Formats: sequence, C-alpha cells, structure tokens
Amino acid sequence: MLTYSMENRGGLPLYEYLYRCIRADILGGTLSTDERLPSKRALAEHLRLSVITVESAYQQLEAEGYVYTRPKRGFFVAPVEQTPRPAAPAPIPAEPPARAWKLDLGRNQVDGSRFPVSTWARLTRQVLSEGGAAILSPTPHQGLYALRQAIADDLRDFKGMAVSPEQIVVGAGAEYLYMLLAQLLGGGPSGRETVFAVEDPGYPKIRQVYSKCGAACVPVPIDRQGMNLRALESSGANVVHISPTHHYPTGIVTPIGRRQALLRWAEKSGGVIIEGDYDSEFRFTGRPIPTLQSIDTRGQVVYMNTFSQTISPSMRMGFMVLPPRLLERYRRELDFYACTVPVLEQHVLARFLSGGYYEQHLSRMRKEYRARRSAVIEAFRASSFANRVTFSEQGAGLHFLLRLDTRRSDESLLRRAESLGVRLGFLSEYEAVPSPAHAHTLVVNYAGLDPSHLDGAMALLAQVFAE
Amino acid sequence: MLTYSMENRGGLPLYEYLYRCIRADILGGTLSTDERLPSKRALAEHLRLSVITVESAYQQLEAEGYVYTRPKRGFFVAPVEQTPRPAAPAPIPAEPPARAWKLDLGRNQVDGSRFPVSTWARLTRQVLSEGGAAILSPTPHQGLYALRQAIADDLRDFKGMAVSPEQIVVGAGAEYLYMLLAQLLGGGPSGRETVFAVEDPGYPKIRQVYSKCGAACVPVPIDRQGMNLRALESSGANVVHISPTHHYPTGIVTPIGRRQALLRWAEKSGGVIIEGDYDSEFRFTGRPIPTLQSIDTRGQVVYMNTFSQTISPSMRMGFMVLPPRLLERYRRELDFYACTVPVLEQHVLARFLSGGYYEQHLSRMRKEYRARRSAVIEAFRASSFANRVTFSEQGAGLHFLLRLDTRRSDESLLRRAESLGVRLGFLSEYEAVPSPAHAHTLVVNYAGLDPSHLDGAMALLAQVFAE
Repeated sequence: MLTYSMENRGGLPLYEYLYRCIRADILGGTLSTDERLPSKRALAEHLRLSVITVESAYQQLEAEGYVYTRPKRGFFVAPVEQTPRPAAPAPIPAEPPARAWKLDLGRNQVDGSRFPVSTWARLTRQVLSEGGAAILSPTPHQGLYALRQAIADDLRDFKGMAVSPEQIVVGAGAEYLYMLLAQLLGGGPSGRETVFAVEDPGYPKIRQVYSKCGAACVPVPIDRQGMNLRALESSGANVVHISPTHHYPTGIVTPIGRRQALLRWAEKSGGVIIEGDYDSEFRFTGRPIPTLQSIDTRGQVVYMNTFSQTISPSMRMGFMVLPPRLLERYRRELDFYACTVPVLEQHVLARFLSGGYYEQHLSRMRKEYRARRSAVIEAFRASSFANRVTFSEQGAGLHFLLRLDTRRSDESLLRRAESLGVRLGFLSEYEAVPSPAHAHTLVVNYAGLDPSHLDGAMALLAQVFAE
Repeated sequence: MLTYSMENRGGLPLYEYLYRCIRADILGGTLSTDERLPSKRALAEHLRLSVITVESAYQQLEAEGYVYTRPKRGFFVAPVEQTPRPAAPAPIPAEPPARAWKLDLGRNQVDGSRFPVSTWARLTRQVLSEGGAAILSPTPHQGLYALRQAIADDLRDFKGMAVSPEQIVVGAGAEYLYMLLAQLLGGGPSGRETVFAVEDPGYPKIRQVYSKCGAACVPVPIDRQGMNLRALESSGANVVHISPTHHYPTGIVTPIGRRQALLRWAEKSGGVIIEGDYDSEFRFTGRPIPTLQSIDTRGQVVYMNTFSQTISPSMRMGFMVLPPRLLERYRRELDFYACTVPVLEQHVLARFLSGGYYEQHLSRMRKEYRARRSAVIEAFRASSFANRVTFSEQGAGLHFLLRLDTRRSDESLLRRAESLGVRLGFLSEYEAVPSPAHAHTLVVNYAGLDPSHLDGAMALLAQVFAE
C-alpha cells in the first residue's frame, strides 16, 4: 500500500500533496506501468484521509495522464517515462544593460519633457470614466473608426491629403506595419517574386524588417534628389520604400520632377511605392512639402507615418493609408489580423487629434526644435574644432549631418568616443554599400540635447575629435 | 510678367497663394521648363506684395523642386511633367459592416462586464499621476522589466513554472508573437528549411500567420491525446505548435506520456515545441495542468500566452518565454524590434498582476464561467432537441463541443442559422483536412451568452436545428 506522511505537505492542500507524492512515485519508477492503484476507499483508510481527498488526487492524476481507469476495475499507472535526473539548466543570458551616455548624438531621440502629459492624462481619465467599453470593446481590425477619422482629418487639414478613414490601417508602430506590408506585397506562394528596393543610405530597420520577413530586398543608391531612378529601374524591384519628404538621415527632399518620374515608374511597371513620411512634421520654414500620396492619381502609393517622433517612441502607434486596389487585397488576405493597438490608446489619441492638442503640440515643438537646432549649430560654430566641420541640413528634422575634416577612421572615432562616454552615429552606419563619399560624416540627433549643457558637450567632442 | 489676383486667395497667406498660382502655371504648362521667373523685387512691385512674400513663395517652390536657382541669375522653372487631368479616383471599398447577431455561438468571446474596470482605471490614474516618464520613457525591447517580473512571479505562483524575467518577450498579442517566432525559427537565408507543424483541427490563425510569414506549414492530425506523434515524425516538421493543456477547439488535454514523447521528439530531432497555453486558466476542477515548459529540461519549449481571454481581446498583450538557446538567438537577430505594447499599458498590467487583482479576477471568472457553462448545458439538456445532441467537454475552457444528430449538412445549417440571425461555429471550420468524423459538431462559445436569455436562445436553436 502507498504510504506517505501527510505532515510534510507544507501549505499544500491534502489532495494536491497526495497527487504530488503519487506522481513522484510514478515518475521515479516506484510505481510501474499498468500497476493497479489501491482503491480510493482503501487508500483513504490507510492514510486516514477522506475518500474525496483521494478521489481528487486520482482525478488530477488522470487528467494529466499519469493514471488511467478501467471500468469497474479502478485506476492503473499509465505508461510514463521515468524522469532522468534533470540536466543542469542552461544559464539564462543576462540582459545587456542600458549604457548611460554622457552625450548621446547617435540615436534619434524625442524630447518628452515638453509633451502635454497633463492633457493626455486628462483625456485618458475621461475615456476611463466612460466605463468598461472604452478599454474592453474590440475595435475593427483596421483600428477604431473615430481614430481613423481623426487621422484623416489631420491629414486633410495639415497635409492637404484627401484620404478616407476606410483606407487607414492602424498598427503598433512602423516596424509592425512594415511586416504587414511585407505580407501584403510579398504575394505569390513563396513571396519570392516581389523585390523591395530601399534607399541606400537609409533607415536600416526598414531593410532589416523586410529581410526578416523573407522579402528580397535590394539597396538602391540615392542621389541629390532622392532615389536614383536608373538604379531603381535596373534593380528589378517592384516595390520601393522611400522617404521623399525628408530622407533619413541625409535630409534630402525629393523634388517634384523626381516624384513624378517615380510615379511614372510605378505606373509603367505596375510597382508600388511606400512613402514613409517620418519626421516631415518638423519642417522649420515654409509650408509642409506635399506628400507623394497627394499627387498620386493612379493608386500606386502607400503612405505611412507614426506618432513616434511627434508624440513618443513609447506610444507604439502608426498608420498606413492604402490605395483602393491594395485596400481590397488587404481586406481579402490580411483582415484576419486583430488591430495591435490597445483600444484605450486609440480612444485617447483620437481625442488628442480631434481636440487640436496634437497640432498645438507640434507647433510648439517646431519652435522648440528650431531654437535648439540653431543653438546646437551655433555651439559647433563656436567650438574649438569649428574650422574642421561643415554642416549639411535642410531646415527640417530632428537631426543634421556634420562632416568632420579628420585623418582618423570612423571606427577609431567611434571607439574613442565610446571610451569617453559619448555615443556618435555615422552616416556610414546607414549604408548598405559603403561609399567613401560618406566617410567622416556624423548624423547629429540633436533633439535630446539639453541647450544648457552645450558647452560641456562641445568640450567632450573636442576630445573625441582631437587629431 | 506673372499676374495673379490676390483677392481670390480665401484664407491662405499671401505667400502660399502666390506659390500655388505659380505652381499651377508650371504644372499647367503656362510656364515652361528653364523659363526664368521675374526677379523677386520686380514681381513684388508688379503684384504690390512685399519682397519677403515673393521670396517665401519662391523658396517653397524651390524646396519642392518646381524651380531651381542659378547663382546671380535668379529662379528658373525646373523640368516638371505637365499634370494630366486626374483619372476619376477609384472607389474606396466600403468597410464590411459588423453584423449584429441575435445569438452568437461562433466566435470566442469574453464577458467583459465582470472585469474590474474601476481597479484598472485606478491603477491607470496612479501611473499617470507619476508623470510623463510612465507614458513616454522607452521600455526595453523585450518589455518593461517590472511587467516581466510580475509575469514571472505569476507563472511561478500559479503554474509552478520557474521562469526568469530575462526570458520573457512581451508583444502586442499572440498574432504578433507568432510573427516573431516565424522570423526567429524560420532561420536560413530563405527560411525554407524550417517546417512548422500545426494541429489539425486547430486554431486557424496560427497556420494563417505562419503561412503569411512565408513559413512552410503542415497540418498534423491530432488524436485523443493531442498531436499524433507518428504523423508528426513523418511530417518533416522541425517546429511544432501545440496547445497541450487545453486544445482549441476540442478541449483535449495531452497526457504526461505523450508530453514526454513530444519532448523526446524535440530532443532527437533538434526541434522546437511552441506551447500555446491559451485558455488554460479556465479549468474548473482540480489544479491547473502543469505546462510542458515546466517539464522541459533541455530548453526545447517556447511557452506563450496572452491576456486576451483572461482580461480582454482589446488589451492586445501577450508574452512568450524563450529557452536560453533561443533567447540568445533572439537577442542576436531580432532585438532591433521595439516592444509593440505602449508603456502605459505595461505599467498598469504589471501593477494589476503584482497587486493580486489579476488572480482575483480569474478566480471570480472561473466561478462565473463554471456556473454559466452548467446553465448552458442544462438549457441544452432541457431543450426540445435534447435527444439529438451529445456533449464533449473536459470541464475547462470557454467553449465546448456539441454533436448534433442531423441529416442536414453543416453548410445548410450555417445558412439557415444566418438567416435567423444566429452565428454558429463548426468543428469543420478548424480543420485543414476535412474529416467526416468531425461533421455536425458545433463549437459552442458560451462565454458571451447571457444566462438570463437562455430560453430564447434555445428556441432560436430549435428553429435552426429543425430537420
């Protein structure tokens, strides 16, 4: 008869302790396959437990497959492998610690300190106060209609775009939307027929995501007007992902002539243009550059943008605007995907947009960043290495390029910077095919720089740049 | 000289109106390529505008590439295609309206009315009151550490799993995590070496997502113990996605012997097992079935779960637990992906978990669903068609199977149901390879059924099921 001391059960319920004891005996081989367990009544009497306790333990063992029953004959041990002594568990690789930089120019940052947190919090409280529906109701797969309406209105009012809410797909950030586009345009059973052209230099995550999604991805060089058309034509690509309004990181604006030529390319080849409008909100002079989408009369352009730069990267919200033909395909092939953004955030952003707070914030940040940009450039011009730097900037965006006259390699500058607690970003990091013309060119992400600490920053950089 | 009437400009600033007029003349061909524009001063005098207004208009035209400058010679019209009359825009396909069902048994639902909305709202307000950091700071790519710690604690306390927060990756719902897994395990330059086995019948989105990600995906039949091992071995798969604790939609629990055999398969073949633990929280008798992950000593199992069933599908939050070897690969290959869940939600869920509210809610819902399940089954047993139905259920989950004795096809039952405003779900919809053994079997998702409306529901079903 099975004998266990019930006193050692710690805080466990009796039935669970009994279940564990029998399980250990089965796994350890003390009880062997097809051996019959004592009847519930007999074991209960033997261990001075209630029959119901033994029954619960047997039921749990049966539910997990340690024992089986034969009608009117009782419980038997199921065929189970004896558990070998567990191998020493493999060590869990520790998480790489986030490095605290004294000066970080290398990563695109957003100054969150000016975000109207209290407005956002008030709108959130407002939505929460309207009860459970706002945080629990499912949204349409393309996103909350009110949010898509608010986005369409904003695109109309501030970018002159005629877009219907039906065309908008909301998703958890740009990278997720790239994944959807890889699936939407990847087409064919193997997805191999589609070739994505990406800008070189360009934002590396775009080609990383497309490649990880199994799409063929070719870097196509850009010239002073954006993506080089002849190179695009000979690349064999049928989808091209560009940022015509403000190329990252060079800041190039693609002129109207090239835009028209790109649209002709798409028309002739049946290709699709993905227009990433990242960062275009931070244009400091004149009116916004019209989007490619707004001059596309044939439905060849997918427009996409996120609120990562304009609100915060931690918001994880972006959207794309699909032309009718692709919208139909999306509904047919991908509409089984649930919207990836929590419904609460969608409600709050809808109100933030339609209440005018978003554009108010943008307008404030444009002023703020313009001033900061001038101050940073001023500080460079007044620095001890001023005669060795030249700027390349288009009065837009949260970064600019700075070419350094130096005999040192980018690599050695990076290493020295790192040892001094400074993170730099070089244009060469954005290249797929290295070009000597891009050497010694820093991408200065100035948005995270505190204007009151510029002297210290320049002193650090003087050390980094010393020949 | 260019002549425009400035009175027609509506609400536009003078410079913008002027820019639009000149742009229209360039696109319309009135101004031709390489034609020289009047000097700023001359045009300003001619139109009685300030020089600065003309300058702003010219600058905007230059920024967009409609004109170019030659040093000391002024502004010239750039080569631009004349805009053809735009084709009539293609119609935007309307969004399929959500159908309102009188009775919906076909879709897995969650009863949100019992969710402690006020607790969630209070925690949200608490996080918001702690300032901007909570909604603006970036989180680590795998998710907020506090949230991963809270998840690890919950897995330890309620599922007996020994998991470190470092192993957890948080993402915007199960479908997004499937995409990451397809990328992580898809391996090889083409991803073609990896074959994913999925359960047949099984949750269709799993194979849909893997297939859309370009992964080869084979359905493998299940038997009474879960995935059939011989079929798995001959399938050529090296990754298998299973739900051993509570198979959807059959409710099968994979017994310990089969679990061990699956682990041996993974060990011998170098394969990976993805354990979807969907719905396992709603087990109504005994203790929870231990997860496969918890008996995996060789690091072959990826565990995944979401809060869609336990909190709400609109929450869009799930997580996976990677074994050490795959965690290392994840960090090497996929750690560039930013976490897809907004940081606010992560903070709130972390507190909801660590404050004990989550398990409190689960325990309340288990009671609630158990009662509802009994009431629904009772109602079926008391219905006019009681003698034509048999149940198959394992005392767990938010659905059960109901086999109907009928001469009608599933298809014709579905159509009749639809015409009566009833949505049904059949087991056959979950099959990749149709099996006659699964005909006439309804998947009854009872969680959304209001117990006080069961009489009406049975009357409707009596009409649907009439021979």
